[in-house]
Amino acid sequence: MTTFRIAPSILSADFARLGEEVRNVVAAGADMIHFDVMDNHYVPNLTIGPMVCEAIRPHVQVPIDVHLMVKPVDRIIPDFAKAGANIITFHPEASEHIDRSLQTIRDHGCKAGLVFNPATPLHVLENVIDKVDIVLIMSINPGFGGQTFIPHTLKKIAQARKIIDESGRDIMLEVDGGVKIENIAEIARAGADTFVAGSAIFGKPDYKAIIDAMRVELSKV
Amino acid sequence: MTTFRIAPSILSADFARLGEEVRNVVAAGADMIHFDVMDNHYVPNLTIGPMVCEAIRPHVQVPIDVHLMVKPVDRIIPDFAKAGANIITFHPEASEHIDRSLQTIRDHGCKAGLVFNPATPLHVLENVIDKVDIVLIMSINPGFGGQTFIPHTLKKIAQARKIIDESGRDIMLEVDGGVKIENIAEIARAGADTFVAGSAIFGKPDYKAIIDAMRVELSKV
Amino acid sequence: MTTFRIAPSILSADFARLGEEVRNVVAAGADMIHFDVMDNHYVPNLTIGPMVCEAIRPHVQVPIDVHLMVKPVDRIIPDFAKAGANIITFHPEASEHIDRSLQTIRDHGCKAGLVFNPATPLHVLENVIDKVDIVLIMSINPGFGGQTFIPHTLKKIAQARKIIDESGRDIMLEVDGGVKIENIAEIARAGADTFVAGSAIFGKPDYKAIIDAMRVELSKV
Amino acid sequence: MTTFRIAPSILSADFARLGEEVRNVVAAGADMIHFDVMDNHYVPNLTIGPMVCEAIRPHVQVPIDVHLMVKPVDRIIPDFAKAGANIITFHPEASEHIDRSLQTIRDHGCKAGLVFNPATPLHVLENVIDKVDIVLIMSINPGFGGQTFIPHTLKKIAQARKIIDESGRDIMLEVDGGVKIENIAEIARAGADTFVAGSAIFGKPDYKAIIDAMRVELSKV
Amino acid sequence: MTTFRIAPSILSADFARLGEEVRNVVAAGADMIHFDVMDNHYVPNLTIGPMVCEAIRPHVQVPIDVHLMVKPVDRIIPDFAKAGANIITFHPEASEHIDRSLQTIRDHGCKAGLVFNPATPLHVLENVIDKVDIVLIMSINPGFGGQTFIPHTLKKIAQARKIIDESGRDIMLEVDGGVKIENIAEIARAGADTFVAGSAIFGKPDYKAIIDAMRVELSKV
Amino acid sequence: MTTFRIAPSILSADFARLGEEVRNVVAAGADMIHFDVMDNHYVPNLTIGPMVCEAIRPHVQVPIDVHLMVKPVDRIIPDFAKAGANIITFHPEASEHIDRSLQTIRDHGCKAGLVFNPATPLHVLENVIDKVDIVLIMSINPGFGGQTFIPHTLKKIAQARKIIDESGRDIMLEVDGGVKIENIAEIARAGADTFVAGSAIFGKPDYKAIIDAMRVELSKV
Repeated sequence: MTTFRIAPSILSADFARLGEEVRNVVAAGADMIHFDVMDNHYVPNLTIGPMVCEAIRPHVQVPIDVHLMVKPVDRIIPDFAKAGANIITFHPEASEHIDRSLQTIRDHGCKAGLVFNPATPLHVLENVIDKVDIVLIMSINPGFGGQTFIPHTLKKIAQARKIIDESGRDIMLEVDGGVKIENIAEIARAGADTFVAGSAIFGKPDYKAIIDAMRVELSKV
Repeated sequence: MTTFRIAPSILSADFARLGEEVRNVVAAGADMIHFDVMDNHYVPNLTIGPMVCEAIRPHVQVPIDVHLMVKPVDRIIPDFAKAGANIITFHPEASEHIDRSLQTIRDHGCKAGLVFNPATPLHVLENVIDKVDIVLIMSINPGFGGQTFIPHTLKKIAQARKIIDESGRDIMLEVDGGVKIENIAEIARAGADTFVAGSAIFGKPDYKAIIDAMRVELSKV
Repeated sequence: MTTFRIAPSILSADFARLGEEVRNVVAAGADMIHFDVMDNHYVPNLTIGPMVCEAIRPHVQVPIDVHLMVKPVDRIIPDFAKAGANIITFHPEASEHIDRSLQTIRDHGCKAGLVFNPATPLHVLENVIDKVDIVLIMSINPGFGGQTFIPHTLKKIAQARKIIDESGRDIMLEVDGGVKIENIAEIARAGADTFVAGSAIFGKPDYKAIIDAMRVELSKV
Repeated sequence: MTTFRIAPSILSADFARLGEEVRNVVAAGADMIHFDVMDNHYVPNLTIGPMVCEAIRPHVQVPIDVHLMVKPVDRIIPDFAKAGANIITFHPEASEHIDRSLQTIRDHGCKAGLVFNPATPLHVLENVIDKVDIVLIMSINPGFGGQTFIPHTLKKIAQARKIIDESGRDIMLEVDGGVKIENIAEIARAGADTFVAGSAIFGKPDYKAIIDAMRVELSKV
Repeated sequence: MTTFRIAPSILSADFARLGEEVRNVVAAGADMIHFDVMDNHYVPNLTIGPMVCEAIRPHVQVPIDVHLMVKPVDRIIPDFAKAGANIITFHPEASEHIDRSLQTIRDHGCKAGLVFNPATPLHVLENVIDKVDIVLIMSINPGFGGQTFIPHTLKKIAQARKIIDESGRDIMLEVDGGVKIENIAEIARAGADTFVAGSAIFGKPDYKAIIDAMRVELSKV
Repeated sequence: MTTFRIAPSILSADFARLGEEVRNVVAAGADMIHFDVMDNHYVPNLTIGPMVCEAIRPHVQVPIDVHLMVKPVDRIIPDFAKAGANIITFHPEASEHIDRSLQTIRDHGCKAGLVFNPATPLHVLENVIDKVDIVLIMSINPGFGGQTFIPHTLKKIAQARKIIDESGRDIMLEVDGGVKIENIAEIARAGADTFVAGSAIFGKPDYKAIIDAMRVELSKV
């Protein structure tokens, strides 16, 4: 039976009291914290870096799942590992040497993964499937809030599920962008097991109510 | 008589409870909040961006003084203006069109300034002195903590003071890097009136004690 | 029955009298104007930009088909939309966020498309086929004149035709590079319906004679 | 006695009939054609390149004065020389090897010059004054229309005049940005001898009336 | 019957006596010299350029096989052709215009090839198979020594062999990274015919003994 | 009395037998080895990197003086320090954080210096004079051979001499480009004490004769 994970995106939390926010969302049932790093180069926005990761680290025990929307990626990987990240993912377009970047993440004791933009094919996965612990499918374009789930993504989630199952390896399949109570079951049916949700959770008064409702939906899958 | 301003750098605050930190430091007597933005390109570090600025904005009434250690600078200026910044400074090396970047900051209702790295001469000031509200002299190399004040900077502060005085305009002269109780008077004597202090304040248990001690030193100048 | 379109490339027109040139070529039967934008970065040549597009806009009623050989692409898209472009295409290598760039073009009221260099596979099409109105296959390397049609392109045109037909959507299939009377029928048989021709038309004294001859060839397909 | 030159900027001409425009403006008394090249990288705009220069070349006998707002500059210099440029200027920020770029322009048989943005000091002039045939002072920020003359520029024009006079060499001193009948005499008094005017000339119905009025003003200097 | 080629990588030779080293390794039976060019941009290392190639050229008659780990690639291709290179390969990620770069290599009289990083799929091969004389499969990440053969590479070698055989063209299939006596037969069985070996040969006292032992292994395939 | 140093540039040596070349030139009287590093980005040429430095290190006892014609510079500094460099110089244009780069060189146990292109003013020296052990004045444009000494450089050498003398520090003043027997005395008289010579020495049959002749000239200063 699939283990489903809810990963609230810190991007929608109150940055003035992040420690409290992550404690609350974990208390409400979150399985991990999704940490969105933007550098104003790979995407036209700049968010938060290793020092913020380090600051929230003592507040929660769950994995911190760092999504690097930066280019290049290699120099900053050790910084996040030192800051307490458990998972580090990056976009294949953001590294000339993808195999080496994945290996660098693992050498620093973190789980490693690739993130696929809506238009990016999954082909690169084939050659590095042995070094990947997580595949993150973007269901919106990274770097901006307020977008809705791109329906075509469901096909790509299904493709990724197939590649992962064929590999025989234990690889998380995460989806980020426009996930909410109304569509989480459909996304899970397509093959996802890990769900990033930003404004759907942090934007609401009762985090637990939302996460519980998501789990109810997932229990029907 | 010179008005001296203490501008604690948020970089040394606890990022897990920034709202509380800035409220406390303002209550302790801070005149403005210095907000350090690094993009992992202009400097090898990535800190915090507009969303964090927006989050702390409601917590304090004092000016938020955004120091852009990013390159290029133009695209992100409106984001910070919208996020509540009052002052925006950038490095001349980080913009091909310095006059235009200064104008852009002013067009968005903020005070504009240039930041000078330890090795950077002040020559560019001459041509844009009419559009500058603040001059920031780096007394360490930006992008890294734990550095000590570079003594040679005192000469440059004096040079900047002379240029500012000759302009007849009301321009703040800020210094960032290794400022502490022990050297703040000397820096003020060189001509500075605005003092960024990071670990000297946020790293200590009693913010008010530090800021008060700094003011005592400044009162002797 | 396929509708064939002839799109003379402005690159071979007389830049000293572009208004007259585009009027003449439309009078001679051109279905649209192909507008080649090079930025001296994505390709080692610099041609014409939005102001030139705006200047010729009032001279013709047919669509202006802007081919961006620039990198990055996002900032200049609104400029061309405002300048009167009807179609905007770009190279997938020139945007990190292809889905978003396509959406930006559409949000500005233009038809959107991707251009594929001779060596570039079509894989990226799969994920964005819902947002593509035109596929442009380069049959020469962009950025230089005086090249001849690369025969291997015929296979790729056939692949693109298959993908388009399977999508069930109304998507133009355009070919650019070395198209002339002698090979236009063969290219059409491979699956193309829209034909860019530069020196084959503008380089000749009688535009109508060439376009008519092309249509005769196409009528045999 | 100073020879004054009027250099209408093609940027404000009708790009649909450039040949006619440059013929007309030369017939109206223009001394040279100012040709603005933007690459969407050094400035956020893309205008016209070597092919357009080549197209207008046969229409006029006066010098074509190419202002490169591109970065880098070296590769495109020979293209403009071949396209008929007589003068090529570039921004010192846009070349790592300024002396070599100047030499390259001269080796291709053109006059060479440097362009100074509003904020850029003139210091670099000192070391290359022997290889400079023209100094162009920007009195607006390049890349955008609709700006007004920055008054502080007058001081820089005077500085440049002094440097040129001290060199004892025959170097043109050109000013670009917001030049019009009302301020041309003041600019000339500051030391300029060559005047770029865009919308002030091409935007008006009677080119000759404007150029004549400018000359009347200049005759009073 | 397959012709196998041993291509010692100069990267492990003694750079203080390269002429002697390449003469010795050729006398020991090497079929070609593999020449590793790194530019400190595409990979974080800088090695040797055209002048070193030119210096060793008179010392050997065998082909010099230049592997460009540089980005971009076009400008330096003629330099290596002039310096005596016989084969030039580059990474598809390092050129926007792969077909043109391959053609440039051929126009300069060299054999042309593409290099595939461990994570890079072979898809781009399909469209340029007509212009490729060699395919180089990286079995380690380029830019660093001391790595071991990545086992997953064997699958990619087999894929490349299939593509080459289907093309009916005479294309070398080279493998670089961690090749040694112990695994050369297995790599050959996967489909490779050309073997780069660095420290396995130059690091040892008796070059001939190693190369002979490799040939013995290959004879069993 | 001034100590003069002759620093033959390895760029003109025989790269096929560098160990022998540097031993010979030191035996002939060279005071240090000038090591030219080009990366095909800061200059359009690629020469030799840390591995070559390491290879020649055991062959000579004199200082190896590494001239970085690369951009950026920070990452490669430790590589050269580890490879045995004694002096490392870089161009101020090639580092955003000049003071920090100088400090990095010193932290790795090497002497640090700045290199000034023919057009580059010396202004940046003022602020870092405390961290500079050597000033290198380019008397040709870096990146190309076969150039002749630019006469204007003599003025800059004199300026540098003045700045150095006023600092009261022990700083070498090196000149690179077109130095030969005929002009070395004049260059010394302008203030230089360290002379890079490439083809003037390595291009000739008798290194000692040249170096001796240079010393004779210097003895007259």
